[in-house]
Order: sequence, then structure tokens, then C-alpha cells
Amino acid sequence: MSNFDLTIHESDHKKPKPQTDQIAFGRTFTDHMFMMDYDTGKGWHDPRIVPYEPVTLDPASMIFHYGQTVFEGLKAYRTADDRILLFRPEKNLQRLNQSSDRLSIPPIDEEEVMGYLKELVKLEREWVPETDGTSLYIRPFIIATEPSLAVAPSKTYIFMIILSPVGSYFPGGIHPVQINVEDQFTRAVKGGTGMAKTAGNYSSGYQAQAKASETGNADVLWLDGIEKRYIEEVGSMNIFFKIDGEVVTPALNGSILKGITRTSILEVLNDWGVPVVERKIAIDELYEAYQAGKVEEAFGTGTAAVISPVGELNWQGKQMVINNREIGPLSQELYDTITGIQRGNREDAYGWTIEL
Amino acid sequence: MSNFDLTIHESDHKKPKPQTDQIAFGRTFTDHMFMMDYDTGKGWHDPRIVPYEPVTLDPASMIFHYGQTVFEGLKAYRTADDRILLFRPEKNLQRLNQSSDRLSIPPIDEEEVMGYLKELVKLEREWVPETDGTSLYIRPFIIATEPSLAVAPSKTYIFMIILSPVGSYFPGGIHPVQINVEDQFTRAVKGGTGMAKTAGNYSSGYQAQAKASETGNADVLWLDGIEKRYIEEVGSMNIFFKIDGEVVTPALNGSILKGITRTSILEVLNDWGVPVVERKIAIDELYEAYQAGKVEEAFGTGTAAVISPVGELNWQGKQMVINNREIGPLSQELYDTITGIQRGNREDAYGWTIEL
Ligand SMILES: Cc1ncc(COP(=O)(O)O)c(C=O)c1O
Ligand SMILES: Cc1ncc(COP(=O)(O)O)c(C=O)c1O
Repeated sequence: MSNFDLTIHESDHKKPKPQTDQIAFGRTFTDHMFMMDYDTGKGWHDPRIVPYEPVTLDPASMIFHYGQTVFEGLKAYRTADDRILLFRPEKNLQRLNQSSDRLSIPPIDEEEVMGYLKELVKLEREWVPETDGTSLYIRPFIIATEPSLAVAPSKTYIFMIILSPVGSYFPGGIHPVQINVEDQFTRAVKGGTGMAKTAGNYSSGYQAQAKASETGNADVLWLDGIEKRYIEEVGSMNIFFKIDGEVVTPALNGSILKGITRTSILEVLNDWGVPVVERKIAIDELYEAYQAGKVEEAFGTGTAAVISPVGELNWQGKQMVINNREIGPLSQELYDTITGIQRGNREDAYGWTIEL
Repeated sequence: MSNFDLTIHESDHKKPKPQTDQIAFGRTFTDHMFMMDYDTGKGWHDPRIVPYEPVTLDPASMIFHYGQTVFEGLKAYRTADDRILLFRPEKNLQRLNQSSDRLSIPPIDEEEVMGYLKELVKLEREWVPETDGTSLYIRPFIIATEPSLAVAPSKTYIFMIILSPVGSYFPGGIHPVQINVEDQFTRAVKGGTGMAKTAGNYSSGYQAQAKASETGNADVLWLDGIEKRYIEEVGSMNIFFKIDGEVVTPALNGSILKGITRTSILEVLNDWGVPVVERKIAIDELYEAYQAGKVEEAFGTGTAAVISPVGELNWQGKQMVINNREIGPLSQELYDTITGIQRGNREDAYGWTIEL
């Protein structure tokens, strides 16, 4: 790790820190950010921590026209004894490079960037909130900056990391959500960009999201783009079902994002000896199992909420109420385990956390 | 049209104008640009022409994270008698609003924006080059600017128009291109964003583009995302084939962009009484017709080149050489007709051009 290149320009206008157990997600940012530049021939260079401030870009910058960009999302947690922990951050940097590969963006040096990321969070450690359920959200991202309208990979990029303190996802305790199964719009398809964390995958879901909200749903469950039959994932979460004693999650097929929470949960379940399988699962199969009374639990998994129980699924006018809209015992135990490890309340037998 | 709101701030540093018959596409911009802002509650406001200059955005601006953006591309042409013509610009503003609808971006007032666009091109009329095949490329685009990491439509946007003088697409005369039929990567699928002109659709094609270039191909021919069998379109062009005396182009199916050149060519062909049909066309059907000696011509259509003859198609190791790699008589006649109308050399019986 060669961190000696990093320059730090500290801000002399520190902002007040918010009451983070109430704060809205992703609207407050800390005093500093990390930046580095890429030029073809020169590679990534000029790593620097600077005051959080606007970026200035040519209107022809490729990010505005052809969407060449990738991002990540992870969190820093404050423990009861005031240590700061990161949860499997190396997986996020790995996935960033996998996303970049799909988008023809040059890779970063994961080890080096890990060093920069830690330096930034260290500098901003006062911003990591302490209330249960809160954290400091970390958003690394890369944007194409070459001023050119040619449809081709950019020759220049900026990599940035910004930080945002976030409140509890479930302020009043865990609250199972209602989700609409989308059967018209498509998020991703084989050969597309679904497995990458790239901007275009998200705004393309706003229409489906709006449709879902209109009927009181909190989120969308996406089906595959080919048959509109196989379950893929939720807006920003992977999905798990407990059916007749067995846990099932859609197999990674090239159009689903490989969630780090998903990976961790698979490891925990295997460790516990809970039967679990990654496979194709059709929405009609789920509905049949539901009618037979076999769908015991359903939950989304992701960095934002860790475990988000699904209380109700709506599919083509059919309603599936799951576990009486209450959090199930397995969901609860998984939530307690993962969040316990993240906040240093449970032993981290897996070695998943990294202390700053 | 209420143009009285438009403010014009003229630049006092005028750049030298390039020799535009040689200039690379989309790297040189004129002295001014158009901007206006959108705020929820206030609508689009503050239309202004200002010096071409960088934009300053919060690093959390939604355009950088969730790709909520749309764009258009059209051209201004200089006639032999020094008039400036736009080609069906109202169709571009219509399509911009259709794209915006898919991306949950608020619509613009097409008539009003047409007024602004004309004012901008009038101010920059010296930048419209005169050599045959050259033009002033016009790039309207909208970006989401709200600084928030919540995955939801932005509450603020910027609409901009930038202008770039462009050289001839075929400097040494029309040159039929070699195209690779992509059978692994997918550009778009039913229910996705393929029919919208939005950033993410373009960078997602860079991998396929690179693969195509490696084997000497200039571009990619996309197949449908479901069966990988039906022909959709080229990178930035729609596609036409002349098979056994009949012209065929893929029917608009929700994943193909509705090109304005495509629409115009369909109208011209109908007018000429040339048999033409919009329908599904499978790549294996095309190959069979090719083997039977029935594929007479193939050409891409788009604002950039108007007509771009396809001299060779490569599909799974099979090569189709079309019309001996020469421009066919129908392709040539369509090219002469459309470019003739655009440059005022042929009578515009359709009323397609708008004079500034
Ligand atoms: C589309 C999508 N799926 C799944 C996830 C869950 O991934 P992770 O567990 O790594 O947060 C996310 C968010 O991070 C996502 O954006
Ligand atoms: C994906 C795509 N298809 C087709 C076209 C052709 O459309 P038009 O004829 O309106 O330029 C374009 C470019 O404009 C495009 O980007």
C-alpha cells in the first residue's frame, strides 16, 4: 500500500453534525471527500482528500451523455466502545472493479484505494454516529470526464468518495414492507449491465417505482427480462424466501447484482446448517407455495437495511401476505447476527470487520 | 412562443473557427450554450444563452449516481445560398419528451424550447460550416442535479444545448462499413430503456464495440435481448435491408430507438412506391436470404451519416459481403435525396426543413 502520495487539504469550515438518528438518507455530507484523476497513459494519479465542494465539469463531459460511471455503497459503524468498523470493504472495491470492467472503465488499485478510504473515514470519524441503527454511508464512484460527444470510452475519469451520516432504516423498529412484483418494466437482462453497479440501472426503475407507490407499495420486485417469470431482486436489495423449511434465493445469472449482504447471509446460513439454495425461482412457483401455506418468511438484503422483511407481495392483483406481516424468527436472527457483527456487539468469527 | 424570458449573455472571448471538413466529431464547441433550470413547484425557468463554460455540480448530484438523463442529436446545415436549415427539429424535441417520460424527467415546452434552440443557432450561425457533408451538430440534454443519494427522481434538473461543428462523415466519399452482429451482450430489452435516448444505453455497448473493433468491424449490430435472434439496430443507427426487391427494417418493438432519419426514409420510400415493410427480421432469416443471393443492399440510418452503407456483416464466424462492398443504387439515391433536402439542393416537398 503506497499511501505516501496522498495529499490532505483540510477544510477550515467544519459543518455542525446532525442528529443522525432522524436524518434523511443521503442528503447530508461530511466536511471532506476523496478524489483522484485518471488520464490515459498516466493512469490513476493525484489522490487527495479535499474539502467537500462542487466539481466543475465541461458540459460535454461524457458522464452527461453516455453514462459511463460506476459506484459502490458501504458503511462505517461506531461500536459501543467507540471503535470504527468497516464491513467487508474489500468486497466493495472488488465489485467496483467488476462493474468498471463491464463499463470499460479502467480498474483502480484496490489495496491502495482501501488505504485512501480508511484515511478519509479516519479524518471524518467524528461524523460516524453512535445511535443504534445509524452509520456513516460511504459512496465511492467513478465518472467519465472527457469532453467529447464521440460514443466511445472516455480517456479521463474522476474517482471520488463522499460520506453521508445516515439514520436508522427502521426508526420505530423493524417494519415489514409491501412490495409490488413488476411484470411490465424490466431492470436488467442477460448480456446487459444488471450485474454492475452503474447509474443507468437505477433511474430506469423510477417508472416501476412510481407505479408501485401508487398502490401503496414501498418497493419493486423485478422479474427476469426474458420470460417475466423468474424472480431477480428488489430495487436495491437481493431477495430471500424461506419455503417449507428451506431458504431460497435467486441464483446469480448475469442480471442480478451480487450483494455483499447476500453473500454474507449465505455464509451464515451454511454455517448454521440451515438448508439454503441458490436457484431459479419462478413467481408462479412462489405463488403456488404461498397458496399451499409453505412461504414462511421473505426478506430483502442490502447494505441500507441489512435485512428488510417483506410483509406483503402483490403480483397481478394477487396478494401474498407473508408471516402475518411480522418479522420471522430467521429474519430476526440474521438481522441480529449481521448487525451485531457490524457494530461489534457479537463476535466476528468470520473476520468480516476491519477496524480503523 | 414566449421567448421574451430568454436572457442572452454574449461571450467577449470568441474562439477561432476550425477547418470543419477535417475536424473530429464532438470535440470542438461554439462560443455559447443554452441553459435553463427546473425546480419542483417552479417548473422550468431562467432560460438563458451564456458563454460556453464548465458547469459546477455538487458531487452528490443525482446524474452522477443514478443516471437520470436524456439527450438529443440534430444538425443545422448551411445552404449554397447561405441560409441555415434545421431538419425536422420538432421531431427531436418530441422524442426528447418521450425519453424524459421513460426516465421520470419533467417535460419541456417543445414550442418554447424550439424558440430558444433557434436563437442559439442564430447567434452561432458563423459556426455552421459550409463544405459539403459538414454541419453544426446540436446536442440538447437534461441532467438530474439534486444533491441526494436517495434512489428517486430528482427534484431539480438542468436543460442545456451545446453546439459542435462537425466534419464530413465520409471525407473521401461514402465508404461502406463492416459490422459485427453481437450475440452475447445486449443493448436493450422490452420493458427497458431502449426506446429512449438516455446515457446508460450507450456506455453499456462499449464492451461489444471493443470486441467488434478487435476483428476490424466499425460498429455493432444488436440483436433482441430475449432470443438473441431478431435484428434491432446499430450503435447509433437504425438498419435497413433490401431483400429481393423489398426494403425491410425492424418494426419498433419498444427496445429500438425511433430514428428520425428512419421515419423520413420510410416516408420517402413510400412516396417513391418502393415496396417497404417494418417487421421482425431474424438474423438467420437474413443469412438464408444472403445465401440465396437475395440481400441486395444494407444500410444504417441516423443523423450522423444519414445513410451508412453496410459492406460486410459478420455473424458467428459467418461473413455476409453485401453488394460487393459498394454503395447500392437505392442507398445512394436515398442519401442524395435526404442530404439534398437538408442542404437546400433539392426541393423540400415534405416541408421537413426549417429556415432560421
Ligand atoms: C440493485 C442492487 N441489488 C442488491 C443490492 C444489495 O447489495 P449489498 O448487499 O452489497 O448492499 C444493492 C445495493 O447495494 C443494489 O443496488
Ligand atoms: C441508438 C440509436 N439508434 C438510432 C439512431 C438514429 O436516430 P436519428 O435518425 O434520429 O438520428 C440514433 C441516433 O440518433 C441512436 O442513438
